[in-house]
Order: sequence, then C-alpha cells, then structure tokens
Amino acid sequence: MSTHRIAVIAGDGIGKEVMPEGLRALQAAAARFGLPLEFTAFEWANCDYYLQHGQMMPADWFDQLKGFNAIYFGAVGWPDAVPDHISLWGSLLKFRREFDQYVNLRPVRLMPGVPCPLANKKPGDIDFYVVRENTEGEYSAVGGRLFENTERETVLQEAVFTRKGVDRILQFAFELAQSRPKKHLTSATKSNGIAISMPYWDERVKAMSANYPDVRWDQYHVDILAARFVLSPERFDVVVASNLFGDILSDLGPACAGTIGIAPSANLNPERTLPSLFEPVHGSAPDIYGKNIANPVAMIWSGAMMLDFLGNGDERYAQGHDAIMRAIETVLVQGPRTPDMGGTASTTEMGTAIAALV
Amino acid sequence: MSTHRIAVIAGDGIGKEVMPEGLRALQAAAARFGLPLEFTAFEWANCDYYLQHGQMMPADWFDQLKGFNAIYFGAVGWPDAVPDHISLWGSLLKFRREFDQYVNLRPVRLMPGVPCPLANKKPGDIDFYVVRENTEGEYSAVGGRLFENTERETVLQEAVFTRKGVDRILQFAFELAQSRPKKHLTSATKSNGIAISMPYWDERVKAMSANYPDVRWDQYHVDILAARFVLSPERFDVVVASNLFGDILSDLGPACAGTIGIAPSANLNPERTLPSLFEPVHGSAPDIYGKNIANPVAMIWSGAMMLDFLGNGDERYAQGHDAIMRAIETVLVQGPRTPDMGGTASTTEMGTAIAALV
Ligand SMILES: CC(C)[C@H](C(=O)O)[C@@H](O)C(=O)O
Ligand SMILES: CC(C)[C@H](C(=O)O)[C@@H](O)C(=O)O
Repeated sequence: MSTHRIAVIAGDGIGKEVMPEGLRALQAAAARFGLPLEFTAFEWANCDYYLQHGQMMPADWFDQLKGFNAIYFGAVGWPDAVPDHISLWGSLLKFRREFDQYVNLRPVRLMPGVPCPLANKKPGDIDFYVVRENTEGEYSAVGGRLFENTERETVLQEAVFTRKGVDRILQFAFELAQSRPKKHLTSATKSNGIAISMPYWDERVKAMSANYPDVRWDQYHVDILAARFVLSPERFDVVVASNLFGDILSDLGPACAGTIGIAPSANLNPERTLPSLFEPVHGSAPDIYGKNIANPVAMIWSGAMMLDFLGNGDERYAQGHDAIMRAIETVLVQGPRTPDMGGTASTTEMGTAIAALV
Repeated sequence: MSTHRIAVIAGDGIGKEVMPEGLRALQAAAARFGLPLEFTAFEWANCDYYLQHGQMMPADWFDQLKGFNAIYFGAVGWPDAVPDHISLWGSLLKFRREFDQYVNLRPVRLMPGVPCPLANKKPGDIDFYVVRENTEGEYSAVGGRLFENTERETVLQEAVFTRKGVDRILQFAFELAQSRPKKHLTSATKSNGIAISMPYWDERVKAMSANYPDVRWDQYHVDILAARFVLSPERFDVVVASNLFGDILSDLGPACAGTIGIAPSANLNPERTLPSLFEPVHGSAPDIYGKNIANPVAMIWSGAMMLDFLGNGDERYAQGHDAIMRAIETVLVQGPRTPDMGGTASTTEMGTAIAALV
C-alpha cells in the first residue's frame, strides 16, 4: 500500500492542545503496525491567521490540500476575535462542501468507564451511528433582508435540498445499516411542520428503502426523536438526518452517552476523489484553552476512524484502529483522566498514557 | 368577572380520551371556586371530519371561534388516513397563525412521583420554561421544487423571520425571565451554520437585552444547548427559541424531566384580542387509542394553564389553577396511575381521582 498523506490542521484553542496527542497515538500505531502515514502540518485555517490576513485560508487552499488522503483537524473558532460564522464558513464548512465530504459520520457509544447521565444504562446499551448530510440543506448562506432597519424588516433564509444530495446520504446510511447486525435505519424528519423540504426528504427515504428490503426502517419527527434519544437510546442503530437535524442529534446522542467531550467524527468523501476530514465533535473551547486540561480522547478516536477509512479493508490499518480503541477504553477505565472526567491528569498525560498502550 | 367562553376541540385519537378528564378537572375547579366557565364542543378539526368533507374545518371556522376566550384542544392527527402536514396545517397550525398565538409556552418541570430518565435528579432540580415562537420562522409552506423528477431535482424551503415576529417573542421571554427569581434567559441559536436568519436572531436578542438590564442572558447553538438539557438542566430558567428549535427543545426538555407524556402547553395571544389555545404536548397517539390507557395529566395540566391565563390575576382563578396542580402532584405520587407510569389505572380512573381531589 502506498503512503497515505495526511494534512494536519490544529486550528484554534484546545484544537492546538489535543492535536499533539492525536498524532502521538497515530504515530504509535503506525510504528507498531507498519502503517505508511506521512503528516504535513498547516498553519492556517485558524483565527490568528484570519487576524493577520483578513481571511481564514490562503487563496490556493484547495490546491494545497486536494492531493492529501485525509485532513486531521482539531477545532476552529475564537468568537471573541472572529465571529463563528466567519471562521467556520471560512474553513471547516468550506472543506465539507468543496471537498464534497457529504457524509458526516458520528458514533454514539456508551464507553466503559464513562459516567452516563441517563439512569440505569451500561456499556452496550447505547451503540449507534448518526449519519448526517454534510453539504446542503438548512446550512446555507442564501437569503437576505428586506425593508432593512424598519418595522417591516423581514429576513428570508433558504434551505436547499437536491435529489443528488439527499439520495447519496440515504444510500450511505442504508448501506451502513445493512452491514450491521440489527439492520435498522431511522430517518429524522419534520414533515408535519416544514412543509416543502421535509415531505420531499420522506419521499426519497421511501423510494430508497425499496433497494434495501432487508433493512427495517422507520421515521420520527425530530422533536420526538430527540426525546427518544433520552428515553430509549437502545432502540437506535443507524439514524440518518439532514445537515441541521444531524448536527443537533449528533451532539445530543453523545451527551446522552456521557461522551460529549470525547465524541469523534468523520467527514467522508466516500468516493475518495478528494480528502476526507476527521475531527472531534467538540469545538475550540476558549474557556479552558491554555491550561492543558482538555480531554484528548475525541481527537485520538477521530484518528482511529481515519485509520479505518484510509485502510479500507487493509488488515494492518484495522489492527491500528483496534489498538487505539482498546487503549482509549483502558485509559477511560483506569485513568489517567482529565478533570472533565473527574481526574487530575493533563491533556499530555492522558494522551501519553493512551499512546503508550497502543 | 364576566363568563369565559371556552371552545372544546377534542380532535383525534387519544385527544378524545383525555379531553373528558380535562373537562372533569376544570368543572370541579369551577364548582369549587365559582369560576364562570362556559364550554362549547366542536366536532370538527379532526381527521374524521376531513374524510367526510375534504377539509379539516368548515370555511367559517375563524368566525365561529374568534369570539371565544380560549380553545381547549386535545390532539390532531391520524397519519394512516390523512398525512400529518394536511391535518396539522389544516387545523392546529392555522389556529396558531390566524389567531396570532405567537407564544408557545411550555413548562419543563421534574414533578414528584415521576421517574426521571436522568441520573441523580430530584424534584426542584429541573424547573424552567421553553418560550417558543409560534407563527413564523422555519415552519413554512413557502418554497418549491425545480427540475422535478429529474436527476437535477432541487427543493427550496424558505424560512421567514420578521422584526415584529422576533421582537415580540423575545419581549415576552425577557419579561417572563424578569418576573422569575433567577432572572436568567438563554437564547437558542445556530448562527454558525444558518448564516442569514440566525445572525439576525442574535442581533435582535442583543438589542432587546438592553431593555432588561436586570436579566442575565446567554446564548448557545442549538446542538450544544440540546446536549446541556441532558447534562445540566438545572442551569436553565427561561429558554427562548425559534419555532423549530422551540419545537425540538420543548419535547426534549419534558423527556429529560420524564414528563413527555404529561407535559402541557399554552399557545398564547398575549394581547387577548383573539382566543388562546391550550393543549397537551403529546399527539394523538394512534397506537394506544381506543384502550382508555392514555395519561390524562397533560390535558389536565393544560387546563390549569388555561385558568391561569384566563384569570389574569383574579384570585379565584389562581386558586383553581393551584388546586388542579396540587391534585396532579398528589395523584402522580399516590396513584392511581396509567400504564405509562407503571400503574394499571385507566384514563378515566386517573382523571376521576384528580378531579376528586380538586
Ligand atoms: C404536530 C406538530 C405540527 C407540532 C409542532 O411541530 O408544532 C407539535 O410537534 C407541537 O410541538 O405542538
Ligand atoms: C461549528 C459548527 C459550524 C459545526 C456544525 O454545525 O456543523 C459543529 O457544530 C459540528 O457539528 O461540526
């Protein structure tokens, strides 16, 4: 297998603190299993760069990155200096769209050693995926203001759903469901309130389901679905959702599993024609930056997902993935743990312990 | 005080089963405290009516209802026969819009006797309001399809936010926060992803906050806010949200408090120029209809909210409200309870027990 080239973008805030720990675990796995990984760091796509250059990234960012197999990404955002919609639309959301990373895959799993905010749940009870559409839908900068600064001021916000965009995420989700023992897919909708786009989403789900007769599927309005994440998370296997609904459900799911600070995500270009991106679900957390106390697990777990994707069936990569996941589980149970998990360890200590076990 | 005229619309499914219990409690309160309530039942705004007449309501529904002080509403929807977007846009959503019930007020409260799905919470820990915008925003039938039935098919869905619509809900929410001991308001946003409407929402929140210097306020993106409902529900007091975000948060909140089946809501026209509407958060629940096992508490609690609103400071109404709330709390602790709460009582038994205590 030829070398895999990985672009490393730490970003802002705790992104800069957890990234070294992600790399430490990946390098340990690469050394142990002989994985041909090559890392290249980029010092842009962060708010410091914006303050110096008036833009988040150089004009040729696409060309600089397009030849990489993956982007390993920390977190972007420093709202005191740069509004979130500027920093994020100028970096992360550009990657997702322009590299056509149309699948945002987010595991929701109750891990051993992690206290669960739901009563009476144990590891194994919560174990599903949120498959989020990642390029279109409600995330949009299309629209505008009428009658500005008057009493009649009116703001129009467009959401855009395409046949191509909807069908390909549904296909990915049905295939993922088909590959799992429960073969169960749940679609998030809101067709009783959002009267144009969501009935369309429902139609496409129904049409796509015809291709997967062995997948059992159902659909819930997103309000009651959110409630069910809390009340009966056991019943989910693969949950497919639009960009916005997927965003909400993939923060809520990890919260229910007690893993909001450690949840990983993969932004996939399944065709592998452009780089995929792997990042923690958490953000840059300005409030705790600089103390070296951020939990590095989300970054490290995202690295394991990256190995899985890059390996694409290659046994050594699968072993690398599994070794990292076992190391994470062991350290979650035994410590050392960062303060968010009740411990006193630093980011570096927790990351070093995980890498040592890999 | 002159007679209060209340339109009674039971609707579909369990709406028809819980309505008699709501009325039983209200009539008990009216008898005990001398409340001048007059009830008038309407046999439309349900799916049977739709199947007979091809529309959910008669053409003159507005004129028939506009003189009432309140609408006491069960639940609408029978998706096997009538798609939800037809039944709901043809009844409930029309009431909310055309009677300008722009406030949807939903208490989130951990009640005594109710098992909480969150670990280690006790009554008193969760006690806040979701204030939901109820007439505009993401709930919209504006938009359409291009290139229909081709590979290029594209669906546009418009969300519409107006200065008037946003400011009046924010004003209501800030005033509610100001009236409460904690004086704390949280705004739900998603301005990092939804780039036109949500930055506007944030601007209006900031502008409105200047009028309420004694209210402490903050804002969260809706994804992390949903997570915080699970992780730290204690920290909320009044949460204000757009139509869609309010819909999601006001199902999620009651789920976290274990009360998804018993949560009430008020759809208010605060100016009282047109009727307000009081209804359970739960729907028509076709799966359990006909068994007389639906929990009547949401309907009864919604009735208590109606008394509070109609009384508008009148002592007898406040006593009626309090008597119903005490009766609900007592029965939640002592039983009889419906099966959803682990009991064996019927809807009628639970409702009769509550009315007897009033
Ligand atoms: C039934 C549906 C249209 C409605 C809504 O989304 O507003 C319901 O979920 C609610 O919250 O009252
Ligand atoms: C930071 C923000 C734009 C982003 C999103 O909403 O997609 C984040 O919440 C996420 O889920 O990755």
